[in-house]
Amino acid sequence: MFKNKVKNFFTFVFLSILSLFSVNSASASSSPDETAFIFNTLLFLICGFLVMWMAAGFAMLESGMVRSKNVSTICLKNVGLYSISGIMFYIVGYNLAYGISEGGYMGSFTSFTAVEDIATGYSAHSDWFFQMVFCATTVSIVSGTIAERIKIWPFFIFAAILAGIIYPIEMGWQWGGGWLASIGFSDFAGSTLVHAAGGAAALAGAIIIGPRIGRFASDGTSTPIPASSIPLATLGTFILWLGWFGFNGGSQLAIGSMDDAVAVSNIFVNTNIAACAGLIVSMILSQTLYGKVDVTFALNGALAGLVSITAEPLMPTAYSSMLIGGVGGMIAVLGTQFISSLKIDDVVGALPVHLIAGIWGTIAVAITNPDTSFLTQTIGALSVVVFVFIVSVIVWSVLKITIGVRPSEEEEVLGSDKNEVGIEAYTIK
Amino acid sequence: MFKNKVKNFFTFVFLSILSLFSVNSASASSSPDETAFIFNTLLFLICGFLVMWMAAGFAMLESGMVRSKNVSTICLKNVGLYSISGIMFYIVGYNLAYGISEGGYMGSFTSFTAVEDIATGYSAHSDWFFQMVFCATTVSIVSGTIAERIKIWPFFIFAAILAGIIYPIEMGWQWGGGWLASIGFSDFAGSTLVHAAGGAAALAGAIIIGPRIGRFASDGTSTPIPASSIPLATLGTFILWLGWFGFNGGSQLAIGSMDDAVAVSNIFVNTNIAACAGLIVSMILSQTLYGKVDVTFALNGALAGLVSITAEPLMPTAYSSMLIGGVGGMIAVLGTQFISSLKIDDVVGALPVHLIAGIWGTIAVAITNPDTSFLTQTIGALSVVVFVFIVSVIVWSVLKITIGVRPSEEEEVLGSDKNEVGIEAYTIK
Amino acid sequence: MFKNKVKNFFTFVFLSILSLFSVNSASASSSPDETAFIFNTLLFLICGFLVMWMAAGFAMLESGMVRSKNVSTICLKNVGLYSISGIMFYIVGYNLAYGISEGGYMGSFTSFTAVEDIATGYSAHSDWFFQMVFCATTVSIVSGTIAERIKIWPFFIFAAILAGIIYPIEMGWQWGGGWLASIGFSDFAGSTLVHAAGGAAALAGAIIIGPRIGRFASDGTSTPIPASSIPLATLGTFILWLGWFGFNGGSQLAIGSMDDAVAVSNIFVNTNIAACAGLIVSMILSQTLYGKVDVTFALNGALAGLVSITAEPLMPTAYSSMLIGGVGGMIAVLGTQFISSLKIDDVVGALPVHLIAGIWGTIAVAITNPDTSFLTQTIGALSVVVFVFIVSVIVWSVLKITIGVRPSEEEEVLGSDKNEVGIEAYTIK
Repeated sequence: MFKNKVKNFFTFVFLSILSLFSVNSASASSSPDETAFIFNTLLFLICGFLVMWMAAGFAMLESGMVRSKNVSTICLKNVGLYSISGIMFYIVGYNLAYGISEGGYMGSFTSFTAVEDIATGYSAHSDWFFQMVFCATTVSIVSGTIAERIKIWPFFIFAAILAGIIYPIEMGWQWGGGWLASIGFSDFAGSTLVHAAGGAAALAGAIIIGPRIGRFASDGTSTPIPASSIPLATLGTFILWLGWFGFNGGSQLAIGSMDDAVAVSNIFVNTNIAACAGLIVSMILSQTLYGKVDVTFALNGALAGLVSITAEPLMPTAYSSMLIGGVGGMIAVLGTQFISSLKIDDVVGALPVHLIAGIWGTIAVAITNPDTSFLTQTIGALSVVVFVFIVSVIVWSVLKITIGVRPSEEEEVLGSDKNEVGIEAYTIK
Repeated sequence: MFKNKVKNFFTFVFLSILSLFSVNSASASSSPDETAFIFNTLLFLICGFLVMWMAAGFAMLESGMVRSKNVSTICLKNVGLYSISGIMFYIVGYNLAYGISEGGYMGSFTSFTAVEDIATGYSAHSDWFFQMVFCATTVSIVSGTIAERIKIWPFFIFAAILAGIIYPIEMGWQWGGGWLASIGFSDFAGSTLVHAAGGAAALAGAIIIGPRIGRFASDGTSTPIPASSIPLATLGTFILWLGWFGFNGGSQLAIGSMDDAVAVSNIFVNTNIAACAGLIVSMILSQTLYGKVDVTFALNGALAGLVSITAEPLMPTAYSSMLIGGVGGMIAVLGTQFISSLKIDDVVGALPVHLIAGIWGTIAVAITNPDTSFLTQTIGALSVVVFVFIVSVIVWSVLKITIGVRPSEEEEVLGSDKNEVGIEAYTIK
Repeated sequence: MFKNKVKNFFTFVFLSILSLFSVNSASASSSPDETAFIFNTLLFLICGFLVMWMAAGFAMLESGMVRSKNVSTICLKNVGLYSISGIMFYIVGYNLAYGISEGGYMGSFTSFTAVEDIATGYSAHSDWFFQMVFCATTVSIVSGTIAERIKIWPFFIFAAILAGIIYPIEMGWQWGGGWLASIGFSDFAGSTLVHAAGGAAALAGAIIIGPRIGRFASDGTSTPIPASSIPLATLGTFILWLGWFGFNGGSQLAIGSMDDAVAVSNIFVNTNIAACAGLIVSMILSQTLYGKVDVTFALNGALAGLVSITAEPLMPTAYSSMLIGGVGGMIAVLGTQFISSLKIDDVVGALPVHLIAGIWGTIAVAITNPDTSFLTQTIGALSVVVFVFIVSVIVWSVLKITIGVRPSEEEEVLGSDKNEVGIEAYTIK
């Protein structure tokens, strides 16, 4: 035993000296660098599976909010869009975002290739996984707004383009080190890059596709269409909330030092508090304005609080986070009314929650992060939103003109579960 | 590359020497203390998000167990109480518990402030997050028992007082180092501090508010009220079971050494085995007593097994854990009958599961942990239960007299989903 | 402070020298070995709770796929089988698998005993936990295929035998270092040992028990029986998908070095991509063959993709993983038709997904892993499948002859929720 120990000791000394000359020496296995590498990789994997889980959250939220005749379809769309995103972001998305030159506008149309190097500080594959689930989240936002009147395959084609091309391009502007990063824009975990972008694509879809039959009467009044399952919508919200710890916490990108561990913890707390405040504000507002505590407002209030804090979950104090999230909660309630007044049919309320609260959260960064300015934040948010909106309008329009995006009126009334999926969501027997 | 390496080497040596003089030097990134700090913080964050997820578990369990006309309401209450707890525990709860003097009775009414120090061994914010989700769990227990006949806002006011004041005070007695800790009481993860306390607050509510209309006939017979969705109740139980690994495992408070890693692993195994035994015993008992295997007994049996092992999940052998959890399973079945015989209406069976099994688990610590005694464990459990019960009775009574706690008879028959939330839980169209 | 630092420095030097002489010295707390021990243990615990969560996934998937009159029963079976597995694998299973001699056929019928040693590289209890949830997964597969016509207690008896005896024996052949490991068989995370084995036990049950009343007409035609809840089936699939990161990722068995961290990350990516490909292929095939995108095919396509990659999630490139998973997706669609044509009633489609795709995945190892051969892989897969099938046929037959396995025709038509559980799954009031 002693002999072994002595041998180990000299091996260690030898390898330590060796490590001066070689990056990938075996001695790395006990080095602080390697420990940090493992911690950081673990952060990406854990936070990555939490964000992956958000795909289930969107599926449940949307299943609960649509009518029962379209529930099988929305389930299919959600598993489908996650799968399509998972493939597209490998084939083209990642390199389109991260293959960008400094200050540039677009990376390359090439397939992801993992190069593992201890100097990176984390496993390349763990990073890809973490980035991919963000891509899928962006696409998930779209399916909710335009549910119940878009056919399955046109939706999947749009999902592939959004996941593979549109999202990676605008995301690379900032996280890939492109022009937005160069002008000093700041978006910690994606209030703009993910949420407002997803919202802009959804808005384009909602406008081009039009509202569901019966949603807005010709005399200008609107008819609320009841949700099929509130507990599933609640479950979906809880899943999203849980996943958001991964979304924001993992965006610290490292947990291999005390400073990073403290930062991730701080992010967890701020993220949670913003969601709490968003929910409470939306409940109070709902009671005040409508005399009832509409549970869908409460759920969207929490989500809007989460979206709002996503652009900067690290710098604010807990009380600032309450404020930022609380404004998000207001947006969830008032924004819904606003979108409806524009005769835009947003089935799950994703436009106030992701688009408007996303822009709010991005601009609010300037309040708590001294390295940013209102001007730069506004430029960043609007550039992304306008870009995604315009490209999405073009893609939706081309789809509409070519293969068509809507079912016939008869089919829409029948419901897409019978029509396109062939399986009804609920059968009691 | 070689030049860089040499530079790195000298930087390392320089910083190592520097670290003799400075606590927060950059060299800290490679010290064993820092590695342990990161591990411990990671434990709090992972276990924290697992316990946060238990809020969804309670929401699903309760959604499944109430009638469909009150499902939207119970969803709203569950997201709402979690949000209120998340705010209150920051503003006042944490310091009320942990600002206590040694052997004392109460901390201070001040807001939480994070002080991050490597000597603590973990991030202050990660600890706050972990403690906050325990607070929310305590409040979650209440909503199940008194479901279907308590109005939304009075419930939220009670939730705020329980989360911000009542729970932190009694929890501080033990985990804050107060008088219970001084007399040698032991409650590893909160069979008493969380579960029996939540149960006591629920019992007070059930008594003051009274049973649902139609639950007990005037001739003394009781009418079971059917659950609306068994799969949601099952899902809720699975979520709680999963979350419990965080609940008990994280209560080791550290995973930065081999000993702690072994302890956390041991806790995982004992926690799981107690739940398994609780479920199996309750199934067998249900079959024996009633000739059917009532699935709600099985679910509550697992939960009671979990509550029972929570006071001491580390010291028992696996076979002792089976025994402790198995008795919990008996309590789930027999306790339900007992509570019902007292004409107390406990919608989800939280009183046997959390209150009675919580007391059982606390007293059972004396069997496996030689540092404890039956007397001290009984004193601790009863002190907390009596304190929480009395204060809760006062709060519920004040609420009843002032703003009122129950809907009118007509409103209760209609269901609170239509009445207070304005959204029905299930719409098939 | 300076004094403390100097003291710490000399303590560190002293302990470092001491560590040359003693394996378990206190200085171990900062050794690379201990850090790796904690990382590895953490991997088992995190991946373990993810796989535990798969039990909820099976419960939801099966709840969604059976008729509403049998939903409470399938919920009960799923929580019950998990509990029974958790006990049996402790009392006898673990040692039956791992107490095997090199190249042998069976371990010992003894209870698990944890021996914690830093040299093992991980906590024994964390390993037990991780292996136990694999055992439970195997049993979960069975409940889906034979749902709706097997009585509760005979099912539980079979579950106990499968979890405690059959699974541990065949698993030990490979992972315990038995004869399959000796001949060079390779099954990274259990395409054969878990999935095909569970499928073989399910197939035996389906044959012995027979199809549900009304599933196959006497003229040879088959009648599809509609699922009760597609969103629950979707939720179940998402849960399984999430859990699979733990299933495959944890099977690396270590994350304490850079190489292992890179491997686990790689496994996450391949696992995800195989599932994505499986889902997309099954959607396209469903559209092509049937003119509709059957959502249950899509869900099973993802699961079959996951099963297919499970035997070797580390070696393939992302594009190979797409191929392997994509073939799984084909199997999900075509295999369902094939099983149905044999007049075998497989309620959730577990036979194509777990049995056929499990065999495919096992054989496909030979494509990407140069250390394996088609012959050895085929021998391994068939040995396990034939062994489990034959023993299961015997056990099912004995149960059928002795206590009986099926409810009466009248009882089956009524549904087991009313009949055996006494609680209906859904009550709207």
